[in-house]
Amino acid sequence: MNVDGTSFRTIWLGKDGETVEIIDQTRLPFEFIVVQLDNAGKAASAIRNMWVRGAPLIGATAAYGMALAMREDPSDDRLSAAADLLMATRPTAVNLRWAVDEMKKLLTPLSPNARARAAYIRAGEICDEDVAICSLIGDHGMPLIHRTWEARGKPERVNVLTHCNAGWLATVDWGTALAPIYKAHDAGIPVHVWVDETRPRNQGASLTAWELGKHGVPHTVIVDNVGGHLMQHDLVDLVITGTDRTTAAGDVCNKIGTYLKALAAHDNGVPFYVGLPGPTIDWTIDDGVRDVPIEQRDAAEVTEITGRSPSGEIAAVSIVPEGSFAANYAFDVTPARLVTGLITERGVSTASKAGLAELFPEFAG
Amino acid sequence: MNVDGTSFRTIWLGKDGETVEIIDQTRLPFEFIVVQLDNAGKAASAIRNMWVRGAPLIGATAAYGMALAMREDPSDDRLSAAADLLMATRPTAVNLRWAVDEMKKLLTPLSPNARARAAYIRAGEICDEDVAICSLIGDHGMPLIHRTWEARGKPERVNVLTHCNAGWLATVDWGTALAPIYKAHDAGIPVHVWVDETRPRNQGASLTAWELGKHGVPHTVIVDNVGGHLMQHDLVDLVITGTDRTTAAGDVCNKIGTYLKALAAHDNGVPFYVGLPGPTIDWTIDDGVRDVPIEQRDAAEVTEITGRSPSGEIAAVSIVPEGSFAANYAFDVTPARLVTGLITERGVSTASKAGLAELFPEFAG
Repeated sequence: MNVDGTSFRTIWLGKDGETVEIIDQTRLPFEFIVVQLDNAGKAASAIRNMWVRGAPLIGATAAYGMALAMREDPSDDRLSAAADLLMATRPTAVNLRWAVDEMKKLLTPLSPNARARAAYIRAGEICDEDVAICSLIGDHGMPLIHRTWEARGKPERVNVLTHCNAGWLATVDWGTALAPIYKAHDAGIPVHVWVDETRPRNQGASLTAWELGKHGVPHTVIVDNVGGHLMQHDLVDLVITGTDRTTAAGDVCNKIGTYLKALAAHDNGVPFYVGLPGPTIDWTIDDGVRDVPIEQRDAAEVTEITGRSPSGEIAAVSIVPEGSFAANYAFDVTPARLVTGLITERGVSTASKAGLAELFPEFAG
Repeated sequence: MNVDGTSFRTIWLGKDGETVEIIDQTRLPFEFIVVQLDNAGKAASAIRNMWVRGAPLIGATAAYGMALAMREDPSDDRLSAAADLLMATRPTAVNLRWAVDEMKKLLTPLSPNARARAAYIRAGEICDEDVAICSLIGDHGMPLIHRTWEARGKPERVNVLTHCNAGWLATVDWGTALAPIYKAHDAGIPVHVWVDETRPRNQGASLTAWELGKHGVPHTVIVDNVGGHLMQHDLVDLVITGTDRTTAAGDVCNKIGTYLKALAAHDNGVPFYVGLPGPTIDWTIDDGVRDVPIEQRDAAEVTEITGRSPSGEIAAVSIVPEGSFAANYAFDVTPARLVTGLITERGVSTASKAGLAELFPEFAG
């Protein structure tokens, strides 16, 4: 999407056609810094240090990491070592594993002198495929916003609430939850976004607000406590979030706090949609509340907040008394009964076994 | 309650029997600073600068402010000027207005030389009355915790979730929502409190965590997004919050985000209680969602967070990109249908016209 009028993806090739460039997302929203990845080790650092984040972007970075390794040394040993190095950066990331396996499978049978070129081509395809999926999510989701706006008599603004960051920064371009919003905005629909700040890591206040602002989409940051009040007062027309994992029955695992917004949407008759790429559906699980393990992260993410000090430095401050403990559950599960629809690259389905099976018959048991 | 083993109220007379002492709550949780109020102007500053907060404590401080004024100059002019000065500090605070009116009514008919003594006595009574009310809320609420603990077979801990700060720091002692918790803890019931940090002003992370910790009550700070997940996984036995205003029908206006916790409690069968002094019931309103106006506060409370820097100073950092707007709704309304019971100084009632009328027949129309 646009950054001050210039179109960007989150990962691209530099002018030499071989160096990979990314945005250091840990510096956002305060600084826009492009980092050159000129070897596989640096690609691994980019993943490990969370300069890149979001499953699709991590996968794309790993794929390009393999290409960078093949440029340096296309030997069998190097191929295997690079795969291990990249895989070890985030051992539980499904997309990362998939991308590295995909590259290994492609490159291993090739003669060493053909590997670098093939790797760059496949990494580029992986990026383009992700962009295509997200763009389709946008195409299928945009009419939901458009119809709501029309049904309400084309008011001055149509209000969408989102939680966390499921925008282009978390993918290669477009995003998942934000793709319909970008498509609506670009089509001239006056969409306004309520951006949950999304404690504890504040991805809404820092990343979603930044990317919407840079693309020119009107938005307002709110604390995570506000959404219910807004819905009670008819200030939210629809909710769209992303998801990390959706079960075969349509339960949605997403950033902690999503469930509370879904409850409020349900209580106030506000449609609650989730944007997701088909590959994030976990066909092996039905009951998300029971069966999706929820990661607990470092309590320091709760007790310390990073921001920009008045003198311009990025600084962390502690907000909890000494001696008080904090707990940090990273995700929650929204039961399918609270989800109005799932927006996928193949269309919009109900959050149910039957709905998903219709769109993805080849996976549904 | 206790601060490191010493019993405190939030307002008390100094050794000379005339100077009023308070805790500068703006420095909590990082510094425990006692401030001497030796004249009415300083009492007004204490309210205006939010060194004291919470309706009952603001009222008590204003009452003592009138006493300090009478000590300096018990003339009619001074009486009237002091009332105006104190009233102007927080023009919309109902308790403040009540306390100042109460003092004026008492002092005006007295001869000037009798005023200071009478004022100190009445201010002391106002404090004691508040302590008595909060203590009774504790007495009526504690059995709810006790019975839950027993019903569950006396597990190692009984988990109460609270939002914002409705503890002794917001009153003269005991608090409202926290009074039952202190009584349970003091009675040996192993109560553990999930403390919502309560963005944007973080009264949970800073004040509730501090006062529970200083009194020795086990607690864990969580971001406001977590409560629903905890309830889904049976980690909350009951919710107790305070309220700023309760309607005659039992709708509860409280800190923004309370409604979301009530929805989650309802969805998971967790009892949701509200602790409140009878005088905070607004008998003139039924429908809280429709009729309670919600204050919008400065957006800087959302975009900037204050905490302690690694070098120990108290510092504010900005967490939102330049150019992004923020909105700051301060309260929301939880409909009575989501409230299990109201814990008052006269007992526990259902959140309904009939329930409240039974406890407060003299007010109910």
